[in-house]
Amino acid sequence: MAFTDKQLEIIQVAEALFAEKGFDGTSIRDISAKADVNVAMVSYYFGSKEKLLEALVLHRIADMSLQLENIVGLEASPKDKILKVTEVYLHKLAANCDMYKIVQQEMAHGKRQLNSDAFNEVRTANMDLIRKIVEEGQRQGAFQQNVKVELLPNLMVGSFMHLTTNRSYYQQIMQLTDDSFAQYLQVDFVKHIQQTLMGLLCHPPQNV
Amino acid sequence: MAFTDKQLEIIQVAEALFAEKGFDGTSIRDISAKADVNVAMVSYYFGSKEKLLEALVLHRIADMSLQLENIVGLEASPKDKILKVTEVYLHKLAANCDMYKIVQQEMAHGKRQLNSDAFNEVRTANMDLIRKIVEEGQRQGAFQQNVKVELLPNLMVGSFMHLTTNRSYYQQIMQLTDDSFAQYLQVDFVKHIQQTLMGLLCHPPQNV
Repeated sequence: MAFTDKQLEIIQVAEALFAEKGFDGTSIRDISAKADVNVAMVSYYFGSKEKLLEALVLHRIADMSLQLENIVGLEASPKDKILKVTEVYLHKLAANCDMYKIVQQEMAHGKRQLNSDAFNEVRTANMDLIRKIVEEGQRQGAFQQNVKVELLPNLMVGSFMHLTTNRSYYQQIMQLTDDSFAQYLQVDFVKHIQQTLMGLLCHPPQNV
Repeated sequence: MAFTDKQLEIIQVAEALFAEKGFDGTSIRDISAKADVNVAMVSYYFGSKEKLLEALVLHRIADMSLQLENIVGLEASPKDKILKVTEVYLHKLAANCDMYKIVQQEMAHGKRQLNSDAFNEVRTANMDLIRKIVEEGQRQGAFQQNVKVELLPNLMVGSFMHLTTNRSYYQQIMQLTDDSFAQYLQVDFVKHIQQTLMGLLCHPPQNV
């Protein structure tokens, strides 16, 4: 996952173009022109546009791993760590909203490029870091024993994606302008998901 | 929303074909051939393939409204009603998995056909039924006061869609076969979402 400066530049250029013109609407030629390298160089580095998208996604979630590792190592309660993890996940999603939409569409289409072993390894490594925090909380008696850790990222990412995919509907019913929706994603929605995770982790099972 | 028997038959044929061959891979001609009506009849009834999809979605969620109304009227505690609502939502999603995937893709593409007023009206009516149950629980002191009702369907639908969109990954990490994943969606996943909603509705806010 160690990219050279030039590779990182190509990845960043690709990200901006995918966000602006969509994945299908962007060609390797567009990317190489804007990154000021020749087409052969992009192909040499990444192989294909799909592989370039994969490199971009891996780069983004590898960065998440670092942040999660930092949170695991903090002098803080497991609850505070989970609150921080939620914030990091949702801010990352908000900052890369278009990118996640592209990934989601690739997944929904049943294309397999992004379902790669490398991608899944990083996802699983991130999940294991969350598991560490949950187990710490369970040992301290702060969290319930019966927690499906693999469904915690599912809850954060799924809720976020559904909200942004149905953005115009939610803006309408919550009476939010474009600007206040962006603000909502950063603040109130983060609080809502934090509250949801706290309920799930701390509330004793009942009636279920 | 009252469809004739013939219209319902066309809707059901369209649903089966969309699920089998995708929305883009299905033509009005395919639908009319299988429903044994002429092409002009389908166009006369529904206008376009997009409008036919809209009619199908409206038909499906109108059916949900009936089920939700029944739950609201039950002699049961608000908690039990929410547990039942979760079951109805998730079983409906599982039964119409392909259809929701098509809807999600239409939304993600930024196409506006499904963002129609009629669609949003039914969604909002369903949400109002859930709001009734939540307010009943709040009056009885069973639920917290500070609940974002508009985010409850978001949580159910978003988590479900993310799980099924990333199905191969989740099957791998949870070691589930195709059959046991289908079973998982019907039972354990429903319990997980029920537990999540109970935590959110009943657990006092803290640290957030």
